[in-house]
Amino acid sequence: MSSSTQPFAPEPFTVDDYRARMARAVESATGAGLAGVLVAPGPDLVYLTGYQPTAITERLTVLVLAAGQDPVLVVPTLEAPDAERAVGAGALTLRDWKDGVDPYGVAAPLLDGGGRFGVSDNAWAMHLLGLQQALPDTSYVSLTEALPMLRAVKDEHELARLAAAGAAADATYEEILKVRFAGRRELEVAADLADLLRHFGHSQVDFTVVGSGPNGANPHHEAGERVIEHGDMVVLDFGGLLAGYGSDTSRTVHVGEPTAEERRVHDVVREAQAAGVAAVRPGAACQDVDRAARAVITEFGYGERFIHRTGHGIGVTTHEPPYMIEGEERELVPGMCFSVEPGVYLPGRFGVRIEDIVAVTEEGGRRLNGTDRGLAVVE
Amino acid sequence: MSSSTQPFAPEPFTVDDYRARMARAVESATGAGLAGVLVAPGPDLVYLTGYQPTAITERLTVLVLAAGQDPVLVVPTLEAPDAERAVGAGALTLRDWKDGVDPYGVAAPLLDGGGRFGVSDNAWAMHLLGLQQALPDTSYVSLTEALPMLRAVKDEHELARLAAAGAAADATYEEILKVRFAGRRELEVAADLADLLRHFGHSQVDFTVVGSGPNGANPHHEAGERVIEHGDMVVLDFGGLLAGYGSDTSRTVHVGEPTAEERRVHDVVREAQAAGVAAVRPGAACQDVDRAARAVITEFGYGERFIHRTGHGIGVTTHEPPYMIEGEERELVPGMCFSVEPGVYLPGRFGVRIEDIVAVTEEGGRRLNGTDRGLAVVE
Repeated sequence: MSSSTQPFAPEPFTVDDYRARMARAVESATGAGLAGVLVAPGPDLVYLTGYQPTAITERLTVLVLAAGQDPVLVVPTLEAPDAERAVGAGALTLRDWKDGVDPYGVAAPLLDGGGRFGVSDNAWAMHLLGLQQALPDTSYVSLTEALPMLRAVKDEHELARLAAAGAAADATYEEILKVRFAGRRELEVAADLADLLRHFGHSQVDFTVVGSGPNGANPHHEAGERVIEHGDMVVLDFGGLLAGYGSDTSRTVHVGEPTAEERRVHDVVREAQAAGVAAVRPGAACQDVDRAARAVITEFGYGERFIHRTGHGIGVTTHEPPYMIEGEERELVPGMCFSVEPGVYLPGRFGVRIEDIVAVTEEGGRRLNGTDRGLAVVE
Repeated sequence: MSSSTQPFAPEPFTVDDYRARMARAVESATGAGLAGVLVAPGPDLVYLTGYQPTAITERLTVLVLAAGQDPVLVVPTLEAPDAERAVGAGALTLRDWKDGVDPYGVAAPLLDGGGRFGVSDNAWAMHLLGLQQALPDTSYVSLTEALPMLRAVKDEHELARLAAAGAAADATYEEILKVRFAGRRELEVAADLADLLRHFGHSQVDFTVVGSGPNGANPHHEAGERVIEHGDMVVLDFGGLLAGYGSDTSRTVHVGEPTAEERRVHDVVREAQAAGVAAVRPGAACQDVDRAARAVITEFGYGERFIHRTGHGIGVTTHEPPYMIEGEERELVPGMCFSVEPGVYLPGRFGVRIEDIVAVTEEGGRRLNGTDRGLAVVE
């Protein structure tokens, strides 16, 4: 492992950045026929205000954005001091409520009682029900359905963070090729991946998949007690957050020399991944990326073994819209960032997945991961 | 620190335990006039099935419990292998759905289209909206509102886990008294607390509050860069999960000898906490516990400085119903477990909080924390 790395220190987002994001959310909401947007703790709130409560509890915290009024953050009194310290707090009004008070009664006067509101996907059902009860004539739609593009198009400062996260993930992959695989449990290699991600600057590790042999054929396998053996294919899929933005990359390696069939399946996935990336350009539909990757796999007879969508967006989370999936006709726009990660899964035998994060530019797709996509042989 | 600890290895919950919990949930739902219960990933699902997805994503996972039908877990195809491995999976049917399929269309036929359903508080609003749209004549109520007692009454196996978690938290407190406070940042002491909780068997640390001097006057302060000084009061509040069940205890310590005023405030809180615990008995109302603790603090003139409720339930989470708060008239029942944690907060100066987990027994309240509640002097 390299003995030191240059810490990545991006310009912090400013109160003006958050003000602009909140204004854009209101504008988008109005354009979509909404009275406003209700933002719950989680990625939407981080994106719009920089505020992340230390824990998400049953106490209502909600940012109310609506045309013609300043942004208001409804927050439990106990958490108000933390909320005030968020950078975006300078661009909004705090409205705190004490234990014992009905928080929906505090939020309700901020809402147009007959309006339709976008609400964060991950807002608690309990809070949505509380608002529906307090204001029976309001209606709601998930933010992803109403304003799927709210966080999807990244500005240059966000792209710089995503590129830095991708570079750190790449450095992690280069180093993991040097560790021993054979004779070690998947969980040990997964721990190495996590250590490396942190070493290269990640503040949070979200997943470290090590799917060896038959475990690689389950695309949602994480890592387990299985001891990796000579002759195994091993799917590696890892990522997390660096400077608040996500990484997510997959490579499949082989312990010792692969068989001809293993090479062939790997080549198919590699070609499919390249085709998916090549399909990325402004104006193409999300589903075109899926179709391009899937066509290659289908052509080689593995269509039934590619059992997930081709990709997902990435930003302040490692998993968000837009989705590269059949039926998603939304158009790609410069600044969007998402994974392209086709795979082939042979039940009981092995799996192969290759994944890069790709940013849409005017010229086409720009990969934010650059490590070799060949089938690396490890020990 | 003691060089070794006996690992706590409780009897695992069995498929029969989960079957009984699901049956009881259906029975309670029917008794409350509900058509059924919709359970989202998180504590409700862990409690009812033992299944905890590796990550909670935008893909719908929901357990449908309704009278007259077997429990069905709707789960993304990718996650079905993980779900199958849950102990409770033997008592339910899995219904998986693939990317590209409308998951609400998969769930809808399992629901009585005109019925009213309890839904996990933390279910995603997006999923609730999807169901409301698929079945416009259904209605919903939060599980905490409809069936607040669903997880509140613990059986003996759960109480054993809670007691073990409490004992580990107590061991942590005993050890933290030996570390240096003066001259170290709050975050360093907080890291010590986390290490100790893990050392004594916690698999997860949820919070490690170190509120020194004026920071102690903010009951939601976690731990920060402030360097602890001689003469500081320091609120310690820490907990997490051990064997799947929670710990949560607070003690307030003093760096060097306290002043007479500091001792007095501490004595008031200690007396209030004792009064709260003494009010615990079957048939008392939750608010009686709050009133008993608050009366002491008010009597000594600090009523305005006790700015939160007296307690919260604990179980598979560290924070759940029932709540010990004015207005909560629900009766205490043997097997309930909750915190009793009054505090006094003097803005800009210091805070004091003392907290034990208390189990309701036929004889009254049984504390699951037993460390000394006097004002410990640390260095």
